[in-house]
Amino acid sequence: MADVTSLKELLIDELKDLYSAETQLVKALPKMAKAASAEALKAGFLEHLEQTKEHVNRLEEALERLEASPKGKTCPAMKGLVEEGTEAIDLDGPDAIRDAYLIGAAQRVEHYEIAAYGTARAFAETLGEADIVELLEQTLNEESETDEKLTEIAKSVNTAALAAGGNEAEQD
Amino acid sequence: MADVTSLKELLIDELKDLYSAETQLVKALPKMAKAASAEALKAGFLEHLEQTKEHVNRLEEALERLEASPKGKTCPAMKGLVEEGTEAIDLDGPDAIRDAYLIGAAQRVEHYEIAAYGTARAFAETLGEADIVELLEQTLNEESETDEKLTEIAKSVNTAALAAGGNEAEQD
Repeated sequence: MADVTSLKELLIDELKDLYSAETQLVKALPKMAKAASAEALKAGFLEHLEQTKEHVNRLEEALERLEASPKGKTCPAMKGLVEEGTEAIDLDGPDAIRDAYLIGAAQRVEHYEIAAYGTARAFAETLGEADIVELLEQTLNEESETDEKLTEIAKSVNTAALAAGGNEAEQD
Repeated sequence: MADVTSLKELLIDELKDLYSAETQLVKALPKMAKAASAEALKAGFLEHLEQTKEHVNRLEEALERLEASPKGKTCPAMKGLVEEGTEAIDLDGPDAIRDAYLIGAAQRVEHYEIAAYGTARAFAETLGEADIVELLEQTLNEESETDEKLTEIAKSVNTAALAAGGNEAEQD
Protein backbone atom coordinates (compact mmCIF):
# COMPACT_ATOMS: atom_id res chain seq x y z
CA MET A 1 0.00 0.00 0.00
CA ALA A 2 1.47 3.28 -1.10
CA ASP A 3 0.84 6.79 0.09
CA VAL A 4 -2.54 7.52 1.71
CA THR A 5 -2.67 10.87 3.46
CA SER A 6 -6.39 11.48 4.08
CA LEU A 7 -9.54 9.64 5.10
CA LYS A 8 -11.05 10.60 1.74
CA GLU A 9 -8.20 8.81 -0.07
CA LEU A 10 -8.72 5.80 2.19
CA LEU A 11 -12.46 5.76 1.35
CA ILE A 12 -11.57 5.86 -2.36
CA ASP A 13 -9.20 2.93 -1.79
CA GLU A 14 -11.91 0.92 -0.01
CA LEU A 15 -14.41 1.63 -2.80
CA LYS A 16 -11.92 0.54 -5.47
CA ASP A 17 -11.30 -2.66 -3.49
CA LEU A 18 -15.06 -3.27 -3.40
CA TYR A 19 -15.36 -2.47 -7.11
CA SER A 20 -12.78 -5.16 -7.84
CA ALA A 21 -14.57 -7.57 -5.48
CA GLU A 22 -17.99 -7.01 -7.05
CA THR A 23 -16.75 -7.30 -10.64
CA GLN A 24 -15.01 -10.59 -9.74
CA LEU A 25 -18.30 -11.75 -8.24
CA VAL A 26 -20.27 -10.84 -11.40
CA LYS A 27 -18.07 -13.36 -13.21
CA ALA A 28 -18.27 -16.04 -10.50
CA LEU A 29 -22.03 -16.08 -9.75
CA PRO A 30 -23.21 -17.51 -13.12
CA LYS A 31 -20.81 -20.45 -12.60
CA MET A 32 -22.09 -20.99 -9.06
CA ALA A 33 -25.71 -20.85 -10.33
CA LYS A 34 -24.87 -23.39 -13.03
CA ALA A 35 -23.30 -25.75 -10.45
CA ALA A 36 -26.22 -25.47 -7.99
CA SER A 37 -28.82 -28.25 -8.04
CA ALA A 38 -31.52 -27.04 -5.61
CA GLU A 39 -33.90 -24.75 -7.53
CA ALA A 40 -34.06 -22.19 -4.69
CA LEU A 41 -30.27 -21.96 -4.59
CA LYS A 42 -29.90 -21.63 -8.36
CA ALA A 43 -32.57 -18.89 -8.40
CA GLY A 44 -30.95 -17.19 -5.39
CA PHE A 45 -27.57 -16.99 -7.14
CA LEU A 46 -29.15 -15.59 -10.33
CA GLU A 47 -31.13 -13.01 -8.37
CA HIS A 48 -28.01 -11.97 -6.50
CA LEU A 49 -26.15 -11.66 -9.82
CA GLU A 50 -28.62 -8.95 -10.89
CA GLN A 51 -28.20 -7.19 -7.53
CA THR A 52 -24.42 -7.42 -7.82
CA LYS A 53 -24.48 -5.68 -11.22
CA GLU A 54 -26.41 -2.85 -9.53
CA HIS A 55 -23.81 -2.80 -6.70
CA VAL A 56 -21.13 -2.23 -9.35
CA ASN A 57 -23.17 0.72 -10.70
CA ARG A 58 -23.52 2.21 -7.22
CA LEU A 59 -19.77 1.99 -6.61
CA GLU A 60 -19.14 3.73 -9.95
CA GLU A 61 -21.54 6.47 -8.87
CA ALA A 62 -19.90 6.84 -5.43
CA LEU A 63 -16.42 7.04 -6.97
CA GLU A 64 -17.63 9.55 -9.56
CA ARG A 65 -18.85 11.78 -6.71
CA LEU A 66 -15.33 11.56 -5.25
CA GLU A 67 -13.86 12.30 -8.71
CA ALA A 68 -11.99 8.99 -8.71
CA SER A 69 -11.78 6.10 -11.17
CA PRO A 70 -13.07 2.68 -10.06
CA LYS A 71 -10.18 0.93 -11.82
CA GLY A 72 -6.66 0.16 -10.66
CA LYS A 73 -7.04 -2.22 -7.73
CA THR A 74 -7.44 -5.98 -7.39
CA CYS A 75 -9.14 -7.28 -4.25
CA PRO A 76 -6.94 -10.20 -3.11
CA ALA A 77 -9.47 -11.52 -0.60
CA MET A 78 -12.19 -11.88 -3.25
CA LYS A 79 -9.68 -13.75 -5.39
CA GLY A 80 -9.34 -16.28 -2.56
CA LEU A 81 -13.08 -16.35 -1.95
CA VAL A 82 -13.78 -17.06 -5.63
CA GLU A 83 -11.15 -19.83 -5.46
CA GLU A 84 -13.19 -21.39 -2.63
CA GLY A 85 -16.31 -21.08 -4.80
CA THR A 86 -14.47 -22.92 -7.57
CA GLU A 87 -13.53 -25.70 -5.12
CA ALA A 88 -17.24 -26.06 -4.35
CA ILE A 89 -18.20 -26.05 -8.05
CA ASP A 90 -15.65 -28.78 -8.74
CA LEU A 91 -16.71 -30.96 -5.80
CA ASP A 92 -16.99 -34.56 -6.88
CA GLY A 93 -19.91 -35.95 -4.88
CA PRO A 94 -23.70 -35.90 -4.40
CA ASP A 95 -25.57 -32.78 -5.62
CA ALA A 96 -26.86 -31.82 -2.16
CA ILE A 97 -23.33 -31.91 -0.72
CA ARG A 98 -22.07 -29.66 -3.53
CA ASP A 99 -24.99 -27.31 -2.80
CA ALA A 100 -24.13 -27.23 0.91
CA TYR A 101 -20.54 -26.36 0.06
CA LEU A 102 -21.64 -23.68 -2.43
CA ILE A 103 -23.79 -22.04 0.25
CA GLY A 104 -20.80 -21.99 2.63
CA ALA A 105 -18.64 -20.33 -0.02
CA ALA A 106 -21.36 -17.80 -0.88
CA GLN A 107 -21.96 -16.81 2.74
CA ARG A 108 -18.23 -16.16 3.17
CA VAL A 109 -18.48 -13.78 0.20
CA GLU A 110 -21.53 -12.03 1.66
CA HIS A 111 -19.86 -11.58 5.03
CA TYR A 112 -16.70 -10.24 3.42
CA GLU A 113 -18.81 -7.66 1.64
CA ILE A 114 -20.84 -6.82 4.76
CA ALA A 115 -17.58 -6.00 6.57
CA ALA A 116 -16.12 -4.03 3.64
CA TYR A 117 -19.28 -1.98 3.00
CA GLY A 118 -19.58 -1.38 6.76
CA THR A 119 -16.06 0.06 6.84
CA ALA A 120 -16.63 2.21 3.75
CA ARG A 121 -19.92 3.50 5.14
CA ALA A 122 -18.23 4.45 8.44
CA PHE A 123 -15.56 6.40 6.52
CA ALA A 124 -18.23 8.16 4.39
CA GLU A 125 -20.20 9.04 7.55
CA THR A 126 -17.12 10.52 9.21
CA LEU A 127 -16.44 12.52 6.05
CA GLY A 128 -20.05 13.82 5.99
CA GLU A 129 -20.66 12.28 2.53
CA ALA A 130 -24.39 11.62 3.03
CA ASP A 131 -25.13 10.62 -0.59
CA ILE A 132 -22.37 8.02 -0.55
CA VAL A 133 -23.55 6.72 2.84
CA GLU A 134 -26.99 6.13 1.30
CA LEU A 135 -25.61 4.32 -1.75
CA LEU A 136 -23.48 2.03 0.44
CA GLU A 137 -26.34 1.43 2.86
CA GLN A 138 -28.62 0.18 0.08
CA THR A 139 -26.04 -2.40 -0.98
CA LEU A 140 -25.21 -3.34 2.60
CA ASN A 141 -28.87 -4.15 3.26
CA GLU A 142 -29.05 -6.33 0.15
CA GLU A 143 -25.89 -8.24 1.15
CA SER A 144 -27.38 -8.91 4.60
CA GLU A 145 -30.70 -10.05 3.09
CA THR A 146 -28.84 -12.39 0.72
CA ASP A 147 -26.92 -13.86 3.65
CA GLU A 148 -30.19 -14.49 5.54
CA LYS A 149 -31.80 -16.10 2.48
CA LEU A 150 -28.80 -18.43 2.14
CA THR A 151 -29.12 -19.44 5.81
CA GLU A 152 -32.77 -20.29 5.13
CA ILE A 153 -31.97 -22.31 1.97
CA ALA A 154 -29.18 -24.12 3.87
CA LYS A 155 -31.71 -25.76 6.20
CA SER A 156 -33.29 -27.97 3.53
CA VAL A 157 -30.02 -28.37 1.62
CA ASN A 158 -28.13 -29.62 4.71
CA THR A 159 -30.90 -32.12 5.48
CA ALA A 160 -30.72 -33.34 1.87
CA ALA A 161 -26.91 -33.51 2.14
CA LEU A 162 -27.22 -35.68 5.25
CA ALA A 163 -29.62 -38.03 3.45
CA ALA A 164 -27.54 -38.06 0.25
CA GLY A 165 -24.27 -38.96 1.86
CA GLY A 166 -25.33 -40.66 5.07
CA ASN A 167 -23.81 -39.89 8.43
CA GLU A 168 -20.56 -41.77 8.03
CA ALA A 169 -17.42 -40.44 6.38
CA GLU A 170 -16.12 -43.96 5.94
CA GLN A 171 -19.21 -45.27 4.17
CA ASP A 172 -17.64 -45.59 0.73
CA MET B 1 -11.99 -30.12 -4.63
CA ALA B 2 -11.79 -33.86 -4.72
CA ASP B 3 -14.20 -36.53 -3.61
CA VAL B 4 -16.63 -35.61 -0.80
CA THR B 5 -19.39 -38.14 -0.33
CA SER B 6 -20.93 -37.27 3.05
CA LEU B 7 -21.89 -34.26 5.15
CA LYS B 8 -19.43 -35.48 7.79
CA GLU B 9 -16.60 -35.31 5.26
CA LEU B 10 -17.76 -31.83 4.27
CA LEU B 11 -17.74 -30.74 7.94
CA ILE B 12 -14.18 -32.09 8.26
CA ASP B 13 -13.21 -30.12 5.16
CA GLU B 14 -14.73 -26.90 6.59
CA LEU B 15 -12.92 -27.41 9.91
CA LYS B 16 -9.58 -27.97 8.13
CA ASP B 17 -10.19 -24.77 6.14
CA LEU B 18 -10.83 -22.91 9.41
CA TYR B 19 -7.76 -24.49 11.00
CA SER B 20 -5.65 -23.14 8.15
CA ALA B 21 -7.36 -19.74 8.46
CA GLU B 22 -6.79 -19.48 12.22
CA THR B 23 -3.16 -20.58 12.07
CA GLN B 24 -2.52 -17.97 9.36
CA LEU B 25 -4.16 -15.41 11.64
CA VAL B 26 -1.98 -16.38 14.61
CA LYS B 27 1.00 -15.32 12.48
CA ALA B 28 -0.63 -12.12 11.17
CA LEU B 29 -2.07 -10.63 14.38
CA PRO B 30 1.26 -9.79 16.11
CA LYS B 31 2.29 -7.82 13.00
CA MET B 32 -1.05 -5.98 12.97
CA ALA B 33 -0.67 -5.20 16.70
CA LYS B 34 2.85 -3.89 16.09
CA ALA B 35 1.62 -1.63 13.26
CA ALA B 36 -1.33 -0.25 15.28
CA SER B 37 -0.88 3.12 16.97
CA ALA B 38 -4.07 3.59 19.04
CA GLU B 39 -3.58 1.82 22.37
CA ALA B 40 -7.09 0.30 22.34
CA LEU B 41 -6.47 -1.18 18.89
CA LYS B 42 -3.05 -2.58 19.77
CA ALA B 43 -4.49 -4.15 22.94
CA GLY B 44 -7.50 -5.46 20.99
CA PHE B 45 -5.28 -7.25 18.47
CA LEU B 46 -3.16 -8.80 21.22
CA GLU B 47 -6.24 -9.95 23.14
CA HIS B 48 -7.67 -11.48 19.97
CA LEU B 49 -4.35 -13.24 19.34
CA GLU B 50 -4.78 -15.13 22.62
CA GLN B 51 -8.38 -15.98 21.69
CA THR B 52 -7.26 -17.13 18.24
CA LYS B 53 -4.75 -19.57 19.77
CA GLU B 54 -7.64 -21.03 21.76
CA HIS B 55 -9.73 -21.22 18.55
CA VAL B 56 -6.95 -23.34 17.03
CA ASN B 57 -7.13 -25.67 20.06
CA ARG B 58 -10.91 -25.99 19.74
CA LEU B 59 -10.61 -26.90 16.05
CA GLU B 60 -8.02 -29.55 16.92
CA GLU B 61 -10.43 -30.94 19.52
CA ALA B 62 -13.37 -30.93 17.08
CA LEU B 63 -11.32 -32.69 14.40
CA GLU B 64 -10.05 -35.23 16.93
CA ARG B 65 -13.67 -36.08 17.78
CA LEU B 66 -14.21 -36.72 14.06
CA GLU B 67 -10.98 -38.77 13.94
CA ALA B 68 -9.48 -36.41 11.36
CA SER B 69 -6.21 -34.52 11.16
CA PRO B 70 -6.32 -30.69 11.12
CA LYS B 71 -3.54 -30.56 8.53
CA GLY B 72 -3.61 -30.75 4.74
CA LYS B 73 -5.59 -27.72 3.59
CA THR B 74 -4.71 -24.09 2.90
CA CYS B 75 -7.48 -21.52 3.18
CA PRO B 76 -7.09 -19.35 0.05
CA ALA B 77 -9.46 -16.63 1.29
CA MET B 78 -7.46 -16.07 4.48
CA LYS B 79 -4.34 -15.78 2.33
CA GLY B 80 -6.02 -12.88 0.51
CA LEU B 81 -7.32 -11.39 3.76
CA VAL B 82 -3.84 -11.47 5.32
CA GLU B 83 -2.53 -9.81 2.13
CA GLU B 84 -5.00 -6.97 2.76
CA GLY B 85 -3.75 -6.74 6.35
CA THR B 86 -0.20 -6.43 5.01
CA GLU B 87 -1.31 -3.61 2.70
CA ALA B 88 -2.65 -1.81 5.78
CA ILE B 89 0.55 -2.46 7.77
CA ASP B 90 2.63 -1.04 4.92
CA LEU B 91 0.45 2.06 4.47
CA ASP B 92 2.61 5.13 4.11
CA GLY B 93 0.65 7.89 5.85
CA PRO B 94 -0.58 9.25 9.20
CA ASP B 95 -0.90 6.75 12.08
CA ALA B 96 -4.66 7.21 12.49
CA ILE B 97 -5.23 6.48 8.79
CA ARG B 98 -3.17 3.28 9.06
CA ASP B 99 -5.24 2.33 12.14
CA ALA B 100 -8.50 2.95 10.24
CA TYR B 101 -7.28 0.71 7.43
CA LEU B 102 -6.12 -1.98 9.88
CA ILE B 103 -9.58 -2.05 11.47
CA GLY B 104 -11.16 -2.47 8.03
CA ALA B 105 -8.86 -5.40 7.26
CA ALA B 106 -9.48 -6.99 10.68
CA GLN B 107 -13.28 -6.73 10.39
CA ARG B 108 -13.13 -8.47 7.01
CA VAL B 109 -11.26 -11.32 8.75
CA GLU B 110 -13.81 -11.49 11.57
CA HIS B 111 -16.72 -11.59 9.14
CA TYR B 112 -15.05 -14.28 7.07
CA GLU B 113 -14.72 -16.37 10.21
CA ILE B 114 -18.29 -15.63 11.35
CA ALA B 115 -19.56 -17.00 8.04
CA ALA B 116 -17.25 -20.03 8.09
CA TYR B 117 -18.00 -20.99 11.71
CA GLY B 118 -21.72 -20.45 11.02
CA THR B 119 -21.56 -22.92 8.13
CA ALA B 120 -19.56 -25.48 10.14
CA ARG B 121 -21.96 -25.16 13.08
CA ALA B 122 -24.96 -25.74 10.78
CA PHE B 123 -23.32 -28.92 9.42
CA ALA B 124 -22.51 -30.15 12.96
CA GLU B 125 -26.10 -29.47 14.06
CA THR B 126 -27.51 -31.43 11.11
CA LEU B 127 -25.13 -34.28 11.96
CA GLY B 128 -26.25 -34.24 15.63
CA GLU B 129 -22.67 -33.54 16.82
CA ALA B 130 -23.68 -31.55 19.92
CA ASP B 131 -20.16 -31.32 21.42
CA ILE B 132 -18.75 -29.90 18.19
CA VAL B 133 -21.67 -27.44 17.91
CA GLU B 134 -20.77 -26.16 21.40
CA LEU B 135 -17.05 -25.77 20.57
CA LEU B 136 -17.86 -23.85 17.37
CA GLU B 137 -20.47 -21.71 19.11
CA GLN B 138 -17.95 -20.53 21.72
CA THR B 139 -15.58 -19.35 19.00
CA LEU B 140 -18.37 -17.86 16.91
CA ASN B 141 -19.45 -15.71 19.87
CA GLU B 142 -15.89 -14.48 20.40
CA GLU B 143 -15.51 -13.57 16.71
CA SER B 144 -18.75 -11.57 16.87
CA GLU B 145 -17.67 -9.81 20.07
CA THR B 146 -14.32 -8.93 18.47
CA ASP B 147 -16.11 -7.49 15.44
CA GLU B 148 -18.31 -5.33 17.71
CA LYS B 149 -15.27 -4.12 19.69
CA LEU B 150 -13.55 -3.11 16.44
CA THR B 151 -16.65 -1.14 15.37
CA GLU B 152 -16.47 0.68 18.72
CA ILE B 153 -12.72 1.42 18.40
CA ALA B 154 -13.29 2.61 14.81
CA LYS B 155 -15.39 5.55 16.01
CA SER B 156 -12.51 7.38 17.68
CA VAL B 157 -9.95 6.14 15.15
CA ASN B 158 -11.98 7.44 12.16
CA THR B 159 -12.40 10.84 13.84
CA ALA B 160 -8.64 10.94 14.43
CA ALA B 161 -8.05 9.88 10.81
CA LEU B 162 -10.22 12.76 9.60
CA ALA B 163 -8.26 15.23 11.75
CA ALA B 164 -4.89 13.72 10.79
CA GLY B 165 -5.39 13.83 7.07
CA GLY B 166 -7.96 16.57 6.62
CA ASN B 167 -10.98 16.19 4.37
CA GLU B 168 -9.27 16.65 1.01
CA ALA B 169 -7.62 13.92 -1.02
CA GLU B 170 -5.66 16.47 -2.98
CA GLN B 171 -4.23 18.26 0.04
CA ASP B 172 -0.67 17.08 -0.39
